[in-house]
Amino acid sequence: MAGRISVDEHAAFIRSLLSGLGARPTERVALADALGRITASPVESPIPLPPFRNSQMDGFAVRAADVADAPVTLPVDGEVAAAAGTTAPLVPGTAVRIMTGAAVPDGADAIVPVEDTEPVERTEAADEGDPGVGAVRILHARAAGAFVREAGSDLAAGADVLPPGLRLASRHLAAAAASGLTELLVRERVRVAVVSTGSELVEPGTPLGPGEIPDANGVALASAARAAGALVVHSGRVRDDVERLRAELDAAVDAGAELVVTSGGISMGAYEVVRELLEPLGAWVGSVAMQPGGPQATAGYRGMPVICFPGNPVSAQLSFELFVAPALRAMAGLPSARTERLALAEDVRSVVGKRQFLRGRRTADGLVVPVGGAGSHLVATLAASELLIVVPEDVEALDAGAIVDTVFL
Amino acid sequence: MAGRISVDEHAAFIRSLLSGLGARPTERVALADALGRITASPVESPIPLPPFRNSQMDGFAVRAADVADAPVTLPVDGEVAAAAGTTAPLVPGTAVRIMTGAAVPDGADAIVPVEDTEPVERTEAADEGDPGVGAVRILHARAAGAFVREAGSDLAAGADVLPPGLRLASRHLAAAAASGLTELLVRERVRVAVVSTGSELVEPGTPLGPGEIPDANGVALASAARAAGALVVHSGRVRDDVERLRAELDAAVDAGAELVVTSGGISMGAYEVVRELLEPLGAWVGSVAMQPGGPQATAGYRGMPVICFPGNPVSAQLSFELFVAPALRAMAGLPSARTERLALAEDVRSVVGKRQFLRGRRTADGLVVPVGGAGSHLVATLAASELLIVVPEDVEALDAGAIVDTVFL
Repeated sequence: MAGRISVDEHAAFIRSLLSGLGARPTERVALADALGRITASPVESPIPLPPFRNSQMDGFAVRAADVADAPVTLPVDGEVAAAAGTTAPLVPGTAVRIMTGAAVPDGADAIVPVEDTEPVERTEAADEGDPGVGAVRILHARAAGAFVREAGSDLAAGADVLPPGLRLASRHLAAAAASGLTELLVRERVRVAVVSTGSELVEPGTPLGPGEIPDANGVALASAARAAGALVVHSGRVRDDVERLRAELDAAVDAGAELVVTSGGISMGAYEVVRELLEPLGAWVGSVAMQPGGPQATAGYRGMPVICFPGNPVSAQLSFELFVAPALRAMAGLPSARTERLALAEDVRSVVGKRQFLRGRRTADGLVVPVGGAGSHLVATLAASELLIVVPEDVEALDAGAIVDTVFL
Repeated sequence: MAGRISVDEHAAFIRSLLSGLGARPTERVALADALGRITASPVESPIPLPPFRNSQMDGFAVRAADVADAPVTLPVDGEVAAAAGTTAPLVPGTAVRIMTGAAVPDGADAIVPVEDTEPVERTEAADEGDPGVGAVRILHARAAGAFVREAGSDLAAGADVLPPGLRLASRHLAAAAASGLTELLVRERVRVAVVSTGSELVEPGTPLGPGEIPDANGVALASAARAAGALVVHSGRVRDDVERLRAELDAAVDAGAELVVTSGGISMGAYEVVRELLEPLGAWVGSVAMQPGGPQATAGYRGMPVICFPGNPVSAQLSFELFVAPALRAMAGLPSARTERLALAEDVRSVVGKRQFLRGRRTADGLVVPVGGAGSHLVATLAASELLIVVPEDVEALDAGAIVDTVFL
């Protein structure tokens, strides 16, 4: 059992323990599965965007020179629909009817939108000398390039459509799809195992014997890891039995876990299974100057970092939030927990020498008020709170109106 | 083809179309799958929390009256570990060694933490008259109730551990697990179908023939729906063929879709498959005073709302963000898109009579700058932007420094 360290020292040590996870392995995933994942490399578009010169409007493809003296009437030499296949070049002095997105014929350099044209009756067209084809009256001149989307005007072929390290939202997947890509190289999610320890713990839903309680930490830590962007590859629960705990850690290694988070078994009691197994292997087991959550430990097991929290469910959850979630969120490209400085609605007392994390809520008028007491067993109270009120180590009491740091849950 | 309406009118109409989805069907899901889901009813805890009176510390269970004159030495009458089973009542005048979380014996009303005690040597204990059992020296008096967690002090049996309409985070799942629950009644996610239309569209990754482009809208709208908390139950892509579109909408109904979102086929061109199928069924097909995204339509198909966007991928994505995502997010308990009023870094021009949504980014000094042009085909540019700059209908131009509404993507 080592001595007591500060919250910041413990957080820094865990950060360094987890820094090895920063260089993530990569995997290819289909676009449909890539939402929220992080690109592992720059993503090149193999094609230009748009892939070919196309019309921005429904209208007529023309030579700008032929409509410079508009209004003019031009014979209509056919039509290009979207996906029309290769089209013939524009015959100078004619117009081709064209749909939005359709390829602009070679020789045409402007699009006249349909609303700037008038259909010409066949008989009238005949007067203009082209009875077999039909004609269109162009009402306004258009400059070269009007309503023409040049190939590559959004992105050149071979250019990066997405940068590395990007958390993929729908618009990024759309751009990848437009580039003709079907999958993306992304970082693997961090593979986490969660192990609850304590002979009093039973699977939630199991009838409780004397002294038994449902295991809240397994669900709490696994779902907190998922919410922080990690993949939970193994979860287990063991009685206070060193060999069973060893088997769970071995199972976590076998499942490819890169990190194990345990709860329970690290304090000063008589049956401290995590301490018993890991302290002989060189674990740091000690006390962090915080409340709740004082007893803490860190270890390595077969090359895998093991972060050990106390068994009280509030302590375990707050410890995860403070020490592990920030690193996982950063690796998953998720924002940090929101922090805000708010005024206290009532007096609070604290313990000098420990950083206190009180559970709290905002009041209707924007102040913060503690919810429930300091007890680390108040798991329903934690569920009913929305933030942590942070009371620094050197503070014994704060008056209503004092400004405090808060961390939103 | 109906006339032109405002963005706000169209948004209000779609809101009313989707309001029927607000009364969500419910389903039971396991705790492990419930992260991010919304509770459909108040959740009662069948047990008190904590389930039984237990110790907050490792130490000794005593009668407060027996330690009032501390320091005192008490014989130690055994030990209660966590999960120790039913324990005998405390014999007055004795102490019972107890672990954190273990049931406090009947008759004991205070816990003396181990650090406030000293072990008494057997010989010394013998002097105090109890050679066979061992004894402990209690250094400080403790009031009745000290370090005892009463059953139900966190939550009474039968009380609500979670309210209805709550988006489930890990701490909520922890409280449900602590209550012995294994599953929760949650709202079903909104079941959405996505259908892309356009003969020019091919599956991303397919070699492109002349005039063909990869379908970006399918991936874009399906992933945007997922990001907004919906479940995509069907997605399809059809050429400009009314019967194929009808078959896709029927497939969406068969898949249990509650809402279909389509792209393409609603403007003034010659091959407008969505309009052709749905206008005879009473669809509203018209123009919304916005750029990009003017052509819009809404319809019902076999009792299912159908929201129709233009085929240009930027128009389709912005339309989804403006008209559909807010309702889906609200039903999924997700926050609204972040909005902020920011100053323009450069002059912008707009079109009077249309609300303009320019793609933009923040500059290093906190201004916003448009990215790329107004073209609704600039799908890579949209991917590279982080917000929309909103230019109101009555504005023709804004100078650098003007304050604009922005919507973060």
